Amino acid sequence: MKIAIAQLNFHIGNFEGNLQKMLDAVEQAKTQQADLICFSELATCGYPARDFLEFEDFIELAEDAIQHLAKAATDIAIVVGSPTKNPIPEGKDLFNAAYFLADGKIQYVQHKALLPTYDVFDEYRYFEPATEFQVVEYKGKKIALTVCEDIWNIGNENPLYTICPMDEMIGQKPDFILNLSASPFSFTHAEERLRVVRANVERYGIPLFYVNHVGAQTELIFDGGSIVMSANGKTYEELPYFEECIRVYDLTEVEKGTQEKEQPKPKMQLIHDALVLGIKDYFKKLGLKKVILGLSGGIDSAVVAVLAARALGPGNVRVVLMPSQFSSDHSVNDARELAINLNVQYDIIPIQSLYEAYEKVLEPHFFGTSFGIAEENIQARSRGMLLMALSNKFGNILLNTSNKSEMAVGYGTLYGDMCGGLSVIGDVYKTEVFELARYMNKDGEVIPENIITKPPSAELRPDQKDTDSLPEYDELDKILVEYIENRKSPQDIIEMGIDEKLVRRVLRLVNINEFKRYQTAPVLRVSDKAFGMGRRMPIVGKYLA
Amino acid sequence: MKIAIAQLNFHIGNFEGNLQKMLDAVEQAKTQQADLICFSELATCGYPARDFLEFEDFIELAEDAIQHLAKAATDIAIVVGSPTKNPIPEGKDLFNAAYFLADGKIQYVQHKALLPTYDVFDEYRYFEPATEFQVVEYKGKKIALTVCEDIWNIGNENPLYTICPMDEMIGQKPDFILNLSASPFSFTHAEERLRVVRANVERYGIPLFYVNHVGAQTELIFDGGSIVMSANGKTYEELPYFEECIRVYDLTEVEKGTQEKEQPKPKMQLIHDALVLGIKDYFKKLGLKKVILGLSGGIDSAVVAVLAARALGPGNVRVVLMPSQFSSDHSVNDARELAINLNVQYDIIPIQSLYEAYEKVLEPHFFGTSFGIAEENIQARSRGMLLMALSNKFGNILLNTSNKSEMAVGYGTLYGDMCGGLSVIGDVYKTEVFELARYMNKDGEVIPENIITKPPSAELRPDQKDTDSLPEYDELDKILVEYIENRKSPQDIIEMGIDEKLVRRVLRLVNINEFKRYQTAPVLRVSDKAFGMGRRMPIVGKYLA
Repeated sequence: MKIAIAQLNFHIGNFEGNLQKMLDAVEQAKTQQADLICFSELATCGYPARDFLEFEDFIELAEDAIQHLAKAATDIAIVVGSPTKNPIPEGKDLFNAAYFLADGKIQYVQHKALLPTYDVFDEYRYFEPATEFQVVEYKGKKIALTVCEDIWNIGNENPLYTICPMDEMIGQKPDFILNLSASPFSFTHAEERLRVVRANVERYGIPLFYVNHVGAQTELIFDGGSIVMSANGKTYEELPYFEECIRVYDLTEVEKGTQEKEQPKPKMQLIHDALVLGIKDYFKKLGLKKVILGLSGGIDSAVVAVLAARALGPGNVRVVLMPSQFSSDHSVNDARELAINLNVQYDIIPIQSLYEAYEKVLEPHFFGTSFGIAEENIQARSRGMLLMALSNKFGNILLNTSNKSEMAVGYGTLYGDMCGGLSVIGDVYKTEVFELARYMNKDGEVIPENIITKPPSAELRPDQKDTDSLPEYDELDKILVEYIENRKSPQDIIEMGIDEKLVRRVLRLVNINEFKRYQTAPVLRVSDKAFGMGRRMPIVGKYLA
Repeated sequence: MKIAIAQLNFHIGNFEGNLQKMLDAVEQAKTQQADLICFSELATCGYPARDFLEFEDFIELAEDAIQHLAKAATDIAIVVGSPTKNPIPEGKDLFNAAYFLADGKIQYVQHKALLPTYDVFDEYRYFEPATEFQVVEYKGKKIALTVCEDIWNIGNENPLYTICPMDEMIGQKPDFILNLSASPFSFTHAEERLRVVRANVERYGIPLFYVNHVGAQTELIFDGGSIVMSANGKTYEELPYFEECIRVYDLTEVEKGTQEKEQPKPKMQLIHDALVLGIKDYFKKLGLKKVILGLSGGIDSAVVAVLAARALGPGNVRVVLMPSQFSSDHSVNDARELAINLNVQYDIIPIQSLYEAYEKVLEPHFFGTSFGIAEENIQARSRGMLLMALSNKFGNILLNTSNKSEMAVGYGTLYGDMCGGLSVIGDVYKTEVFELARYMNKDGEVIPENIITKPPSAELRPDQKDTDSLPEYDELDKILVEYIENRKSPQDIIEMGIDEKLVRRVLRLVNINEFKRYQTAPVLRVSDKAFGMGRRMPIVGKYLA
C-alpha cells in the first residue's frame, strides 16, 4: 500500500481555496499511484477556526467540502479532518473528526476523543469527545485513525486525560496509525513531537504516519515536520519544516524500517524561520503586502526589519527613523545603515516639533509639574501616530517591535511603541533577540554590529538606559522564564539564588501590566507560553500584585 | 434548620481579603443562630481566576484559606467553593469543589461535574469533572451540594452535557439542594436563572438555595440575585441585585413555601446598575479612584460620563472637550452643559494646533494626496494622546466610550477614540445607548436633550454624519444582533427582509475589523455575547470577509 502525506497550508474559512488545494493534492497523489492520501486536522475549514465553529452556516460549508472530496475519492482513499455535527441533542453540537472517504463515499467517521483545552487550545469549547473507536479496513489493511491530541496521552507522567484512544483500538489489530494533526510550533515542539510519536510506536508496535498542518494563522505558526515512523521506533522520514510538501510512502518499506532521517533543530534557525513564515502568512492570508515600522537604532526594531524584509521582500518594507531631542547620533546612523543594508525605503521624520506642539497645548494643564512618564510617552506616542498616519495613507501595515521581556514588565508605551497590527517578536525574550540578531549576521553583517553591542535604551530622556528601570536582561529573563513558562512561585525563584526584592518586584510588574498586554497586537508564538490567547490572566487580580 | 446565604463581593487572588470577608459573615450568621452558611463558587480565590489556577502556589493559598475556614466552622457548618487538587495523575490537576466544613474540619468535598467551556467560560481548561456524587448529612438533613453549571443541564432542548449531577444524587433522598454559583450578569440572565432553578425544583421536588457571587471582575459583572426557591416552584426570596447581602432562612418556612418575592427586572435599569458596579469595582479592586474621558458632545461619551460620575462620584471624574476645526458649536456647548450638570471638572483643549503640527511634519510625505482617513484619524489620535498625557501626568484612568455597534463594524480609530483602560459601553448597541440616556433622564434632565436628539457624527470632516458611512442604527443593530448574538447566516438575515447588499456589507465589516477589537480594552459585559473573552475570532480568516 502506498500512502501519501499532504502537509499543506490551509486558510481558516477559505473553504474554496482549501478544497482546491486538496483536490490538486489528490490528483498529484494519484499520478504517484498512492492508494491513500491523508490531510491534516480540520483541513476543510482551517485550524483554529475558533468561534466560527459556532456558526451553523460555517459547518455546512465544511460538510459541502467533504461531499466534494468524497466524489474525488475514486481509485484512492482520502483521509481528511473536518468538523461534523453531533446528531444527539445531549453534549456539544460538534465532533472534531477524521473522515475516511473511498469509492466516492464517506466510509467512516472517527471522532477525536482527547480535546486539548489548555494554553492556546479551546477544543472542548466546541467539540464533544468521541466515545466509539473503530479501525477502518481498506485494501486488506486495518487503519487506526487518530486526531492530533489522541496520541498525546502517553509518555507523560501527568497525563491530561483518563483514557487513551489507541488503547481502545489496539485490540482490533490495526496495521498502522494515521494521525491528523494541527500542532503549532514552539522551538521545543519538534523534539517533543518525535518523542510522543515514538512512545506510541513503541507501545503499540505498529508504524505511525503523523500528518501536520503547515502555515501560520494569525498568532499560531504550524511548522509541518510531519513524521513517518517505523514500528522499530526509527524516524523513516520527517517532512520539511515551514513549507508545504506532499510525499508518498510504500507501507512495506516503512514497515521494514530500513531508513532513518531526521532534521537538525537549532533553536535560532527554527525561531527565525517560524517568524518569517508568521509574517508572510499573516499578510498573504489578509490579502496585504506592505509593512511599515519605526527604526529606532535599537536591536528590536532592527531584528523585526530584517524578518520583514525576508518575509515580504525589501520592496514591501518601509522604515521610518523618528529622532527626538533625546536621540543619540548613533541611533540615526545605525538605523540608516541597516535600512541601506536591507535595501528598504527609509525616511527620517524628527518629532521634536510634535513634542513641542503637545507641550504648548498642555502647558496650562501641566504647569508646575516636572518632566516624567507623561512627557516620555508623548514622544513614543507621537512616533506611533506618525507611523499610523503613514499606514492609513499608503496602506502599509504597522509591525510592532516589542520584545517579550519588555511586554512582560510593561516597559513600553501603550498607543506608542506598543502600536502595530502584528507583534513579531513579542514571544522572544530580549536575550533571545540578541541571539537572533547574531544568527542573522552569521553569513555576513546585516545588522550593524553597533546595534547589537550598545546598551539598550528607550532614549526618551537624556542618557537613559533600560537598566535605569530594569535589571540586566539576563537576570530579568531568568526570572521571567521561571514565572511565565514554568509557573514557579516567588519562593521557588528566590530559592534559585535570585535576590528576593528583585523577584518580588519583577513578578509584581508582570501582574500589574496585564492591562497593557490586553491591548497588544497578536503575538507570533514561538515558545511554549506566549502572551495572548495562550495566557489568560485577570486584569483585576490581587495575586503578587 | 437555619440556612444563611452569603452573597459577597470577592476579589481574584485577594485570599486574605476574601477570607476575612467570609469569617465576618460566619460571625454574623452565628449571631443569627444559623446552622449553616453557604458562600459562592470559588469564593476563596475569586472567580474567574483564569490562568492563576495553573500556579501551584495560588492553589495552596486557596487551601490555606479552607483550613482557616474549617477552624471557624464550630457551632455552624460552612459550605464554600474552592479549587482542590486532583490526587490522581490522570486528568486535569484540579477540581472545582464545594467544601463542607463542620466541627472544625473538612467533612466532605463535592466536585463540580459540569464544566462550562463556552462564551466567557474556560473551566475545562483547569478542572477535571466530578465522577462521584454524595449527599451530605448534617443535623438530620441530607444536603445535595452542586456547583453552578451542575444544575443547568435540565430545562433545555439542547443540553450541553450528557449527565445531570442531581440525577445521580436524588436517589440518596436529599432534603434540599445547595448551589454555589458564580454566574455572570447579562440583561436576560436573572430571568433565565429563575427558570433553571424552577426546572430543578420541579424535577426533584425539593427546595433549592442558589448562592451567587456579586461584584465585577474586570469585564464580568456578577449581579447576585441569589435565590431561595420552595419545592412548590415559588420563589421564596430573591436577594438584591448588585449588592452584598447575607440573609438567614428557616428551612421549615421555605419548605412550606408560604412566601413569594421576586424583583422587577427592567432592562435599562439592570444595564445601568450593572455598568455602575462594573466601573466601581474595576477601580476599587485596582486601588484606583480617578477617571478621565473625552466629551465630544455626542451621546456615547455623555452616557459614559454619567455612569462614571455615579460610580465614582463627580469629584473623581475629569472630562476634556477637544474641539477641532470640524467641531460644531453645539458640540462644545452640549458637552459643557453636561459637565456642569454632572458637576465634574472639565477643560477645553482645542486640537487644531496639534493637527497642524502633524500636517506640517507629514507634508513632504503626504504631498499630492487628498484629505482622507489618515487626516481624520490624526484628529482622533491627537485626542487620545492628550487624554493619555493627562492620564499619565495625574493618574486618572482613561475610560473608553466606544459603543457595541461601532466596535462591531470598526467605526472607530485604533489608538484614537478606541483608547482607554476600560470599555464601559462596548457591549451596548447604539440604539440601546439612546435608551440608556433616556433612562438616565427619567427623573430630570441630566444629559442635555440636544445630545440625545441630534444626528450622531464623528465630526472628523465638514458636515460628517455617521449615516454617511453606516446605515441607520436601528437597521444596523438589527443585523448585528442576528449575526453576533444569534449567529445567523447571511441567508437567514436576508430572509428576514433586509437588503442583501447591506447584510453582506455589514457582516464583512464585522469580520474584517476583528484586528481592531483585538486591541480594545476589556468590555463590561451586559449581553449574552459581548466582544472580548466570550467571542473568540480568528483575525486571519476568510469567512464572510
